[in-house]
Amino acid sequence: MSAPIDFYFDFSSPYGYFASTRIDSIAAKHGRDVNWHPILLGAVFKVTGGAPLPSLPLKGDYAKFDIPRCARLLGLPFRFPTKFPIATQAAARMTVWAQSLNRARAKTLASALYRAYFADDRDITSPEVCADLAAACDFDRARALASINDPAVKDKLKTEMDVALARDVFGSPYIVVDGEPFWGADRLDHVDHWLATGGW
Amino acid sequence: MSAPIDFYFDFSSPYGYFASTRIDSIAAKHGRDVNWHPILLGAVFKVTGGAPLPSLPLKGDYAKFDIPRCARLLGLPFRFPTKFPIATQAAARMTVWAQSLNRARAKTLASALYRAYFADDRDITSPEVCADLAAACDFDRARALASINDPAVKDKLKTEMDVALARDVFGSPYIVVDGEPFWGADRLDHVDHWLATGGW
Repeated sequence: MSAPIDFYFDFSSPYGYFASTRIDSIAAKHGRDVNWHPILLGAVFKVTGGAPLPSLPLKGDYAKFDIPRCARLLGLPFRFPTKFPIATQAAARMTVWAQSLNRARAKTLASALYRAYFADDRDITSPEVCADLAAACDFDRARALASINDPAVKDKLKTEMDVALARDVFGSPYIVVDGEPFWGADRLDHVDHWLATGGW
Repeated sequence: MSAPIDFYFDFSSPYGYFASTRIDSIAAKHGRDVNWHPILLGAVFKVTGGAPLPSLPLKGDYAKFDIPRCARLLGLPFRFPTKFPIATQAAARMTVWAQSLNRARAKTLASALYRAYFADDRDITSPEVCADLAAACDFDRARALASINDPAVKDKLKTEMDVALARDVFGSPYIVVDGEPFWGADRLDHVDHWLATGGW
Protein backbone atom coordinates (compact mmCIF):
# COMPACT_ATOMS: atom_id res chain seq x y z
CA MET A 1 0.00 0.00 0.00
CA SER A 2 1.31 3.45 -0.90
CA ALA A 3 1.75 6.22 1.66
CA PRO A 4 -1.44 7.45 3.35
CA ILE A 5 -2.95 10.70 2.22
CA ASP A 6 -3.41 13.54 4.71
CA PHE A 7 -6.79 15.07 5.46
CA TYR A 8 -6.83 18.32 7.46
CA PHE A 9 -10.13 19.62 8.79
CA ASP A 10 -11.64 21.91 11.40
CA PHE A 11 -14.74 20.67 13.21
CA SER A 12 -16.38 24.04 12.59
CA SER A 13 -15.97 23.73 8.80
CA PRO A 14 -19.07 22.54 6.92
CA TYR A 15 -17.00 21.79 3.84
CA GLY A 16 -14.71 19.74 6.09
CA TYR A 17 -17.78 17.81 7.21
CA PHE A 18 -18.78 17.17 3.60
CA ALA A 19 -15.26 15.99 2.71
CA SER A 20 -15.06 13.76 5.80
CA THR A 21 -17.95 11.67 4.50
CA ARG A 22 -16.18 10.88 1.21
CA ILE A 23 -12.42 11.00 1.68
CA ASP A 24 -11.86 7.46 2.98
CA SER A 25 -13.91 5.76 0.30
CA ILE A 26 -12.16 7.77 -2.41
CA ALA A 27 -8.75 6.82 -1.00
CA ALA A 28 -9.74 3.17 -0.53
CA LYS A 29 -10.67 2.86 -4.23
CA HIS A 30 -7.00 3.50 -4.94
CA GLY A 31 -5.62 1.34 -2.15
CA ARG A 32 -4.79 4.29 0.07
CA ASP A 33 -5.32 4.96 3.74
CA VAL A 34 -6.14 8.44 5.11
CA ASN A 35 -4.59 10.15 8.11
CA TRP A 36 -7.12 12.52 9.67
CA HIS A 37 -5.74 15.71 11.21
CA PRO A 38 -8.08 17.95 13.20
CA ILE A 39 -6.81 21.54 13.02
CA LEU A 40 -7.84 24.82 14.59
CA LEU A 41 -8.66 27.32 11.87
CA GLY A 42 -8.51 30.18 14.39
CA ALA A 43 -4.77 29.55 14.80
CA VAL A 44 -4.37 29.31 11.03
CA PHE A 45 -6.18 32.61 10.47
CA LYS A 46 -3.77 34.34 12.88
CA VAL A 47 -0.98 33.44 10.46
CA THR A 48 -2.82 33.98 7.18
CA GLY A 49 -5.03 36.92 8.07
CA GLY A 50 -8.01 34.80 7.07
CA ALA A 51 -11.40 35.02 8.74
CA PRO A 52 -14.40 32.74 9.30
CA LEU A 53 -16.81 32.65 6.36
CA PRO A 54 -19.82 34.23 8.16
CA SER A 55 -17.75 37.34 8.92
CA LEU A 56 -16.91 37.98 5.25
CA PRO A 57 -19.14 40.54 3.50
CA LEU A 58 -21.29 38.98 0.75
CA LYS A 59 -19.22 35.76 0.72
CA GLY A 60 -20.69 34.92 4.13
CA ASP A 61 -24.22 35.48 2.84
CA TYR A 62 -23.49 33.37 -0.22
CA ALA A 63 -22.21 30.57 2.02
CA LYS A 64 -25.66 30.40 3.60
CA PHE A 65 -26.95 29.37 0.17
CA ASP A 66 -24.06 27.20 -0.87
CA ILE A 67 -23.52 25.13 2.26
CA PRO A 68 -27.05 23.68 2.66
CA ARG A 69 -27.28 23.32 -1.13
CA CYS A 70 -24.09 21.22 -1.18
CA ALA A 71 -25.41 19.12 1.69
CA ARG A 72 -28.66 18.43 -0.14
CA LEU A 73 -26.81 17.55 -3.34
CA LEU A 74 -24.60 15.13 -1.43
CA GLY A 75 -27.63 13.70 0.38
CA LEU A 76 -26.12 14.51 3.76
CA PRO A 77 -28.11 15.40 6.87
CA PHE A 78 -27.48 19.07 7.59
CA ARG A 79 -28.86 21.83 9.81
CA PHE A 80 -27.18 25.19 10.15
CA PRO A 81 -25.83 25.14 13.71
CA THR A 82 -27.29 27.69 16.10
CA LYS A 83 -23.74 28.68 17.11
CA PHE A 84 -21.48 29.06 14.07
CA PRO A 85 -18.53 29.16 13.84
CA ILE A 86 -17.31 27.70 17.12
CA ALA A 87 -14.00 27.07 18.87
CA THR A 88 -13.14 23.43 18.29
CA GLN A 89 -10.42 22.74 20.85
CA ALA A 90 -12.50 20.22 22.81
CA ALA A 91 -13.43 18.15 19.75
CA ALA A 92 -9.93 18.37 18.25
CA ARG A 93 -8.16 17.37 21.48
CA MET A 94 -10.49 14.47 22.10
CA THR A 95 -9.93 13.24 18.55
CA VAL A 96 -6.14 13.47 18.92
CA TRP A 97 -6.42 11.52 22.18
CA ALA A 98 -8.67 8.91 20.54
CA GLN A 99 -6.21 8.53 17.66
CA SER A 100 -3.50 7.49 20.14
CA LEU A 101 -5.74 4.60 21.24
CA ASN A 102 -7.41 3.41 18.05
CA ARG A 103 -7.16 5.18 14.70
CA ALA A 104 -10.21 3.54 13.12
CA ARG A 105 -12.50 4.32 16.05
CA ALA A 106 -11.06 7.84 16.25
CA LYS A 107 -12.39 8.38 12.71
CA THR A 108 -15.76 7.10 13.83
CA LEU A 109 -15.63 9.58 16.71
CA ALA A 110 -14.60 12.47 14.44
CA SER A 111 -17.47 11.62 12.09
CA ALA A 112 -19.85 11.49 15.05
CA LEU A 113 -18.63 14.91 16.24
CA TYR A 114 -19.20 16.37 12.77
CA ARG A 115 -22.68 14.87 12.53
CA ALA A 116 -23.56 16.03 16.05
CA TYR A 117 -22.62 19.59 15.11
CA PHE A 118 -23.84 19.87 11.53
CA ALA A 119 -26.77 17.45 11.45
CA ASP A 120 -28.11 17.55 15.02
CA ASP A 121 -27.08 21.08 16.05
CA ARG A 122 -25.41 19.82 19.21
CA ASP A 123 -22.90 22.08 20.94
CA ILE A 124 -19.55 20.32 20.49
CA THR A 125 -17.76 23.11 22.34
CA SER A 126 -19.12 21.29 25.42
CA PRO A 127 -16.69 18.71 26.83
CA GLU A 128 -19.70 16.76 28.15
CA VAL A 129 -21.28 16.51 24.70
CA CYS A 130 -17.96 15.37 23.22
CA ALA A 131 -17.53 12.81 26.00
CA ASP A 132 -21.03 11.41 25.37
CA LEU A 133 -20.11 10.91 21.73
CA ALA A 134 -16.79 9.28 22.67
CA ALA A 135 -18.61 6.89 24.98
CA ALA A 136 -20.99 5.99 22.13
CA CYS A 137 -17.88 5.12 20.09
CA ASP A 138 -16.68 2.73 22.82
CA PHE A 139 -14.13 5.05 24.38
CA ASP A 140 -13.98 5.38 28.13
CA ARG A 141 -16.15 8.39 28.93
CA ALA A 142 -14.22 9.63 31.96
CA ARG A 143 -10.86 9.33 30.23
CA ALA A 144 -12.24 11.02 27.12
CA LEU A 145 -13.50 13.91 29.23
CA ALA A 146 -10.13 14.21 31.00
CA SER A 147 -8.24 14.21 27.70
CA ILE A 148 -9.51 17.71 26.90
CA ASN A 149 -7.44 19.15 29.74
CA ASP A 150 -4.52 16.74 29.49
CA PRO A 151 -1.31 18.77 28.87
CA ALA A 152 0.17 15.92 26.80
CA VAL A 153 -2.87 15.95 24.50
CA LYS A 154 -2.76 19.75 24.25
CA ASP A 155 0.92 19.54 23.29
CA LYS A 156 0.22 16.88 20.70
CA LEU A 157 -2.46 19.00 19.04
CA LYS A 158 -0.12 22.00 19.15
CA THR A 159 2.61 19.97 17.45
CA GLU A 160 0.11 18.79 14.81
CA MET A 161 -0.84 22.42 14.21
CA ASP A 162 2.81 23.45 13.82
CA VAL A 163 3.30 20.68 11.26
CA ALA A 164 0.14 21.73 9.42
CA LEU A 165 1.20 25.38 9.29
CA ALA A 166 4.71 24.40 8.14
CA ARG A 167 2.95 22.53 5.35
CA ASP A 168 0.99 25.68 4.42
CA VAL A 169 -2.38 24.25 5.40
CA PHE A 170 -4.57 27.36 5.32
CA GLY A 171 -8.13 26.07 5.12
CA SER A 172 -10.51 23.20 5.69
CA PRO A 173 -10.69 20.69 4.16
CA TYR A 174 -7.09 20.53 2.95
CA ILE A 175 -5.80 17.30 1.50
CA VAL A 176 -2.23 16.35 0.60
CA VAL A 177 -1.58 13.46 -1.79
CA ASP A 178 2.09 12.60 -2.27
CA GLY A 179 3.06 16.23 -1.67
CA GLU A 180 0.30 17.67 -3.89
CA PRO A 181 -2.12 20.00 -2.03
CA PHE A 182 -5.87 20.19 -2.63
CA TRP A 183 -8.09 22.71 -0.88
CA GLY A 184 -11.84 22.47 -0.55
CA ALA A 185 -14.56 19.86 -0.70
CA ASP A 186 -14.99 20.74 -4.37
CA ARG A 187 -11.52 19.34 -5.04
CA LEU A 188 -12.36 15.78 -3.97
CA ASP A 189 -12.95 14.82 -7.57
CA HIS A 190 -9.47 16.12 -8.36
CA VAL A 191 -8.07 14.05 -5.47
CA ASP A 192 -9.85 11.00 -6.90
CA HIS A 193 -8.47 11.65 -10.38
CA TRP A 194 -4.97 12.37 -9.02
CA LEU A 195 -4.95 9.06 -7.13
CA ALA A 196 -6.16 7.24 -10.25
CA THR A 197 -3.63 8.79 -12.61
CA GLY A 198 -0.66 9.73 -10.43
CA GLY A 199 -1.13 13.35 -11.47
CA TRP A 200 -1.63 15.24 -14.69
CA MET B 1 -36.98 29.50 -24.12
CA SER B 2 -36.68 30.31 -20.42
CA ALA B 3 -34.92 33.42 -19.13
CA PRO B 4 -31.19 33.66 -19.84
CA ILE B 5 -28.76 32.91 -17.07
CA ASP B 6 -26.25 35.55 -15.99
CA PHE B 7 -22.52 34.99 -16.11
CA TYR B 8 -20.33 37.56 -14.32
CA PHE B 9 -16.57 37.45 -14.86
CA ASP B 10 -13.42 39.53 -14.60
CA PHE B 11 -10.90 39.23 -17.43
CA SER B 12 -8.14 38.85 -14.84
CA SER B 13 -9.80 35.81 -13.25
CA PRO B 14 -8.41 32.43 -14.34
CA TYR B 15 -11.44 30.65 -12.92
CA GLY B 16 -13.58 33.05 -14.95
CA TYR B 17 -11.62 31.97 -18.03
CA PHE B 18 -12.24 28.30 -17.23
CA ALA B 19 -15.97 28.92 -16.72
CA SER B 20 -16.23 30.96 -19.92
CA THR B 21 -15.24 27.92 -21.97
CA ARG B 22 -18.11 25.82 -20.59
CA ILE B 23 -21.00 28.03 -19.53
CA ASP B 24 -22.75 28.40 -22.90
CA SER B 25 -22.68 24.69 -23.73
CA ILE B 26 -24.02 23.83 -20.27
CA ALA B 27 -26.84 26.36 -20.65
CA ALA B 28 -27.61 25.27 -24.22
CA LYS B 29 -28.14 21.67 -23.08
CA HIS B 30 -31.08 22.99 -21.08
CA GLY B 31 -32.40 25.39 -23.73
CA ARG B 32 -30.96 28.45 -22.01
CA ASP B 33 -29.05 31.43 -23.30
CA VAL B 34 -26.32 33.16 -21.28
CA ASN B 35 -25.83 36.88 -20.73
CA TRP B 36 -22.14 37.62 -20.26
CA HIS B 37 -21.29 40.46 -17.85
CA PRO B 38 -17.68 41.62 -17.62
CA ILE B 39 -17.07 43.07 -14.15
CA LEU B 40 -14.16 44.81 -12.43
CA LEU B 41 -13.15 42.85 -9.36
CA GLY B 42 -11.14 45.80 -8.09
CA ALA B 43 -14.36 47.76 -7.64
CA VAL B 44 -16.00 44.74 -6.00
CA PHE B 45 -13.12 44.33 -3.55
CA LYS B 46 -13.53 47.98 -2.46
CA VAL B 47 -17.00 47.02 -1.25
CA THR B 48 -16.25 43.57 0.14
CA GLY B 49 -12.75 44.07 1.53
CA GLY B 50 -11.62 41.23 -0.72
CA ALA B 51 -8.21 41.08 -2.36
CA PRO B 52 -6.66 39.50 -5.45
CA LEU B 53 -5.62 35.87 -4.95
CA PRO B 54 -1.85 36.38 -5.38
CA SER B 55 -1.83 38.86 -2.50
CA LEU B 56 -3.33 36.40 -0.02
CA PRO B 57 -0.85 34.58 2.23
CA LEU B 58 -0.66 30.82 1.51
CA LYS B 59 -3.90 30.88 -0.52
CA GLY B 60 -2.02 32.79 -3.23
CA ASP B 61 0.74 30.17 -3.28
CA TYR B 62 -1.82 27.39 -3.43
CA ALA B 63 -3.53 29.10 -6.38
CA LYS B 64 -0.27 28.71 -8.31
CA PHE B 65 -0.77 24.94 -8.02
CA ASP B 66 -4.50 24.86 -8.45
CA ILE B 67 -4.95 27.16 -11.45
CA PRO B 68 -2.63 25.40 -13.92
CA ARG B 69 -3.78 22.03 -12.57
CA CYS B 70 -7.42 22.94 -13.29
CA ALA B 71 -6.44 24.12 -16.78
CA ARG B 72 -4.66 20.84 -17.53
CA LEU B 73 -7.60 18.80 -16.23
CA LEU B 74 -9.98 20.80 -18.44
CA GLY B 75 -7.61 20.44 -21.39
CA LEU B 76 -7.41 24.22 -21.79
CA PRO B 77 -4.38 26.09 -23.08
CA PHE B 78 -2.93 28.03 -20.16
CA ARG B 79 0.22 29.97 -19.30
CA PHE B 80 0.54 31.99 -16.12
CA PRO B 81 0.51 35.58 -17.37
CA THR B 82 3.67 37.61 -16.79
CA LYS B 83 1.52 40.40 -15.32
CA PHE B 84 -1.09 39.05 -12.90
CA PRO B 85 -3.53 40.30 -11.80
CA ILE B 86 -4.22 43.21 -14.14
CA ALA B 87 -6.70 46.08 -14.44
CA THR B 88 -9.32 44.98 -16.93
CA GLN B 89 -11.09 48.23 -17.82
CA ALA B 90 -9.97 48.15 -21.47
CA ALA B 91 -11.14 44.58 -22.09
CA ALA B 92 -14.38 45.07 -20.14
CA ARG B 93 -15.29 48.33 -21.89
CA MET B 94 -14.57 46.92 -25.32
CA THR B 95 -16.71 43.88 -24.56
CA VAL B 96 -19.61 46.07 -23.36
CA TRP B 97 -19.29 48.10 -26.56
CA ALA B 98 -19.19 44.94 -28.70
CA GLN B 99 -22.31 43.62 -26.94
CA SER B 100 -24.23 46.69 -28.09
CA LEU B 101 -23.44 45.74 -31.71
CA ASN B 102 -23.63 41.95 -31.76
CA ARG B 103 -24.06 39.77 -28.69
CA ALA B 104 -22.79 36.55 -30.26
CA ARG B 105 -19.65 38.12 -31.67
CA ALA B 106 -19.09 39.95 -28.37
CA LYS B 107 -18.84 36.50 -26.72
CA THR B 108 -16.31 35.49 -29.35
CA LEU B 109 -14.36 38.64 -28.54
CA ALA B 110 -14.54 38.03 -24.78
CA SER B 111 -13.31 34.48 -25.32
CA ALA B 112 -10.49 35.77 -27.52
CA LEU B 113 -9.50 38.30 -24.83
CA TYR B 114 -9.42 35.53 -22.20
CA ARG B 115 -7.33 33.26 -24.42
CA ALA B 116 -4.97 36.08 -25.32
CA TYR B 117 -4.33 36.75 -21.64
CA PHE B 118 -4.32 33.27 -20.15
CA ALA B 119 -3.09 31.12 -23.03
CA ASP B 120 -0.82 33.47 -24.99
CA ASP B 121 0.35 35.82 -22.21
CA ARG B 122 -0.65 38.90 -24.20
CA ASP B 123 -1.11 42.16 -22.32
CA ILE B 124 -4.83 42.88 -22.53
CA THR B 125 -4.42 46.07 -20.49
CA SER B 126 -3.20 47.47 -23.82
CA PRO B 127 -5.98 49.11 -25.88
CA GLU B 128 -4.02 48.23 -29.03
CA VAL B 129 -3.91 44.53 -28.16
CA CYS B 130 -7.66 44.56 -27.40
CA ALA B 131 -8.35 46.37 -30.68
CA ASP B 132 -6.34 43.78 -32.64
CA LEU B 133 -8.47 41.05 -31.11
CA ALA B 134 -11.67 42.96 -31.87
CA ALA B 135 -10.59 43.35 -35.48
CA ALA B 136 -9.96 39.59 -35.68
CA CYS B 137 -13.57 39.14 -34.50
CA ASP B 138 -14.84 41.33 -37.37
CA PHE B 139 -15.36 44.48 -35.36
CA ASP B 140 -14.15 47.78 -36.74
CA ARG B 141 -10.68 48.22 -35.26
CA ALA B 142 -10.72 52.02 -35.01
CA ARG B 143 -14.17 52.12 -33.43
CA ALA B 144 -13.21 49.33 -31.04
CA LEU B 145 -10.14 51.29 -29.98
CA ALA B 146 -12.20 54.44 -29.49
CA SER B 147 -14.80 52.59 -27.40
CA ILE B 148 -12.33 52.31 -24.50
CA ASN B 149 -12.47 56.06 -23.94
CA ASP B 150 -16.10 56.56 -24.94
CA PRO B 151 -17.97 58.15 -21.98
CA ALA B 152 -21.19 56.33 -22.97
CA VAL B 153 -19.39 52.97 -22.82
CA LYS B 154 -17.75 53.85 -19.50
CA ASP B 155 -21.18 54.76 -18.11
CA LYS B 156 -22.68 51.54 -19.37
CA LEU B 157 -19.99 49.47 -17.66
CA LYS B 158 -20.45 51.51 -14.49
CA THR B 159 -24.19 50.82 -14.55
CA GLU B 160 -23.51 47.12 -15.12
CA MET B 161 -21.19 47.17 -12.09
CA ASP B 162 -23.83 48.87 -9.94
CA VAL B 163 -26.34 46.20 -10.93
CA ALA B 164 -23.81 43.45 -10.18
CA LEU B 165 -23.00 44.87 -6.76
CA ALA B 166 -26.70 45.31 -5.97
CA ARG B 167 -27.00 41.61 -6.81
CA ASP B 168 -24.19 40.78 -4.35
CA VAL B 169 -21.79 39.60 -7.03
CA PHE B 170 -18.52 39.33 -5.07
CA GLY B 171 -16.28 37.13 -7.18
CA SER B 172 -15.53 35.66 -10.58
CA PRO B 173 -17.03 33.60 -12.03
CA TYR B 174 -20.44 34.28 -10.50
CA ILE B 175 -23.51 32.77 -12.13
CA VAL B 176 -27.16 33.46 -11.41
CA VAL B 177 -29.82 30.97 -12.52
CA ASP B 178 -33.40 32.08 -11.87
CA GLY B 179 -32.26 34.05 -8.83
CA GLU B 180 -30.01 31.29 -7.47
CA PRO B 181 -26.35 32.33 -7.13
CA PHE B 182 -23.35 30.10 -7.85
CA TRP B 183 -19.79 31.21 -7.24
CA GLY B 184 -16.71 29.63 -8.75
CA ALA B 185 -15.76 27.47 -11.70
CA ASP B 186 -16.13 24.45 -9.42
CA ARG B 187 -19.88 25.15 -9.21
CA LEU B 188 -20.53 24.66 -12.94
CA ASP B 189 -21.63 21.10 -12.28
CA HIS B 190 -24.12 22.47 -9.76
CA VAL B 191 -25.34 24.96 -12.37
CA ASP B 192 -25.79 22.09 -14.82
CA HIS B 193 -27.68 20.03 -12.26
CA TRP B 194 -29.81 23.03 -11.20
CA LEU B 195 -30.80 23.69 -14.80
CA ALA B 196 -31.64 20.01 -15.27
CA THR B 197 -33.73 19.66 -12.12
CA GLY B 198 -35.03 23.16 -11.41
CA GLY B 199 -33.25 23.09 -8.07
CA TRP B 200 -32.95 20.69 -5.16
